[in-house]
Amino acid sequence: MNLTQSPFATPFPNLPDVKGVRCATGSRGFYAKRGVTRDDVFLFAFDEGTTCAGVYTISRTASADVLWCREALQTGGGTARALVANSGNSNAFTGPKGREKNEATLKAMSGTLGVETSQCYLAATGVIGEPLADPNYVGAFVPELAAKLGPPDWEAATRAFMTTDTFAKGAGTSLDIDGHRVNFAGIVKGSGMIAPNMATMLAYIFTDAAIAHDVLQELLQEITGETFNAITVDGDTSTSDTLMVFATGKSGMTPITSRDDPRLDSIAMALHSVCLELAHLVVKDGEGAQKFVTVQVDGAISYVSARIIACEIANSPLIKTAMAAGDANWGRIVMAIGKSLEPINPDALAIWFDDVQVAKDGARMPDYSEEAASAVFAQPEFTVRVDVGAGEDSATVWTCDLTHAYIDINGAYRT
Amino acid sequence: MNLTQSPFATPFPNLPDVKGVRCATGSRGFYAKRGVTRDDVFLFAFDEGTTCAGVYTISRTASADVLWCREALQTGGGTARALVANSGNSNAFTGPKGREKNEATLKAMSGTLGVETSQCYLAATGVIGEPLADPNYVGAFVPELAAKLGPPDWEAATRAFMTTDTFAKGAGTSLDIDGHRVNFAGIVKGSGMIAPNMATMLAYIFTDAAIAHDVLQELLQEITGETFNAITVDGDTSTSDTLMVFATGKSGMTPITSRDDPRLDSIAMALHSVCLELAHLVVKDGEGAQKFVTVQVDGAISYVSARIIACEIANSPLIKTAMAAGDANWGRIVMAIGKSLEPINPDALAIWFDDVQVAKDGARMPDYSEEAASAVFAQPEFTVRVDVGAGEDSATVWTCDLTHAYIDINGAYRT
Repeated sequence: MNLTQSPFATPFPNLPDVKGVRCATGSRGFYAKRGVTRDDVFLFAFDEGTTCAGVYTISRTASADVLWCREALQTGGGTARALVANSGNSNAFTGPKGREKNEATLKAMSGTLGVETSQCYLAATGVIGEPLADPNYVGAFVPELAAKLGPPDWEAATRAFMTTDTFAKGAGTSLDIDGHRVNFAGIVKGSGMIAPNMATMLAYIFTDAAIAHDVLQELLQEITGETFNAITVDGDTSTSDTLMVFATGKSGMTPITSRDDPRLDSIAMALHSVCLELAHLVVKDGEGAQKFVTVQVDGAISYVSARIIACEIANSPLIKTAMAAGDANWGRIVMAIGKSLEPINPDALAIWFDDVQVAKDGARMPDYSEEAASAVFAQPEFTVRVDVGAGEDSATVWTCDLTHAYIDINGAYRT
Repeated sequence: MNLTQSPFATPFPNLPDVKGVRCATGSRGFYAKRGVTRDDVFLFAFDEGTTCAGVYTISRTASADVLWCREALQTGGGTARALVANSGNSNAFTGPKGREKNEATLKAMSGTLGVETSQCYLAATGVIGEPLADPNYVGAFVPELAAKLGPPDWEAATRAFMTTDTFAKGAGTSLDIDGHRVNFAGIVKGSGMIAPNMATMLAYIFTDAAIAHDVLQELLQEITGETFNAITVDGDTSTSDTLMVFATGKSGMTPITSRDDPRLDSIAMALHSVCLELAHLVVKDGEGAQKFVTVQVDGAISYVSARIIACEIANSPLIKTAMAAGDANWGRIVMAIGKSLEPINPDALAIWFDDVQVAKDGARMPDYSEEAASAVFAQPEFTVRVDVGAGEDSATVWTCDLTHAYIDINGAYRT
């Protein structure tokens, strides 16, 4: 099917070079049966000494690739030398055949590049449950890709792992540490089957910062909660969700090996900003999305409670259809807060749409203006903020509206 | 807006007379501002000696009417003399004004009918958060309705409390106990904002069985779990959900006062069948519904676990859009099972669409037929069954598909 481009689509940004990273993309033919010629596999190679960190879907039906990455992160000690990802087939729910595909691919990566398999990472995205007829389908393609390795074309790599994405999504930044320029380049794919509470879809961030695996892993887990785990398109959770950071250490800075290193603050800020920008881009390319909405919950008894309430609002189909229609139906916000079953004070409940307060003290504002509320909902981007009057804690999540295009895309995805 | 009638719409059934119940309906004008003339209030009056039982939404933003019913059920000792419900305004999130409306209505009911306020029940359904300008708007209408009380016109009563419903929904049955004919008549409204885990929307069952309040209450709570709490249209939970049973005792049977009474079995079966039929009708009139789908989960470690998995499947927008498109996208069933985070055995997972097995032992069937699977999804009614291979327990829920009409209805609801 032809996908209409998201209204939030932006040209792919200029991402910085990251020392110690090489890449190649190619067309293996996953989309050939649909009559489409496009790149559908990428190979990244990392210089020796590269550390990594990863967070993965907590789905009970995680893909074979996710299971491998989790295992490699343990056995390889958090070092990385190569990454292969394909689109067009998710390798989830493929049983023994899925594991055979991984073994063949890892063997090819290890043999071609001369590295340990425990330093090789995998990902696959696309239709669930269709085993590859040839387990070596990807593996046999690795030597051809390896021969083409060179400085990354970030946009080409991103396009190789897109599925229902309507634009290529990347974000990066650079900073100075001890006189060394340290670079971050991040790429992400994902548009549907997006829900918080895990790393979402496939996102990779490459940096030439020097940072020990355990410090990087801890940092990534913290940042994920406020970025990738705080977005939702449809409340559905992928079997393949993966977020990884690869740090080559080739910027020249001396390595960070402790959480107490004062230089970690600027690294954390850079990583946070790249993660947040990539996460927002996923929502902005949410299937059928026409609106980008920030949901902020204040006055909750804890961060966890605030987050549950925010997700109920962000995932409610009644609220998402109202957003699509530009109907400032704040009664449905009340409904979603109620169904969260979290502690709230109904008589202190207050609601704002951007700066327009529509409810306070558990009832509509005396001077409520439908016009003012509707004007906020008519915008492509706005904030829904509620104070549930029960405590001091807050949380923010980001979501999009539910439009006819979501139904069209998901009725036709496999055809 | 004009609503397209559900393809499952059926003529209103012939419900039996229930001794000891009188009813009147009328048009108060809740819909007049939309240029529609229709009945929008009903009054039921019950003979002295009527017991009742009720289950209500567990929403933290429950309507003022729900809060009153819960209070009355305690203070009135489970006896009932009157019920007033209106459509067009839900009286939820209306603050002190909502409570004033209830007090005025209860005073009118008590005064006009000469009964205790603690024996009077209330309900309201419609837009959330719009307080009535005149707290006595409904109360002032009660004398006019009381003057018209007579044998119930069940269909007219049902039509008076419909909102986005596209057909009037009722179910009833009769049985013989000790030579006495005992009758059950049930009516329900509800189409969107339907999710399990509480009594859904407004449903009332009237019977002339004689049964003590505490026995009836316990029975109703048990039955709710397998009927009204096992349906979902959109995963959203109303602020007004109410299910009540009124038992006038006028059939002539001697009262049931204990759970050990052997006659309770046939009463329970009758009540269960009426609840289940009403619950199914709500799904069949789900907003925009074109398909009615049974989701059965076997092989779970407990009933609760099976139910969580079934609800993940039934509420997934990706699965519901695939149902709408007739796309037998079973990979999304795998996704939903995984995101439930319940204990499963991925390598033993099996999936059936009606009698067509599409997956076993955690992978697609070797002889998988897309044609056979799609033929099941093309039907207006079918069953999705999964065995998660972890235990011996099962649960069943019922749902509908997610269509363009759902988005149209909910983008235009308030206009």
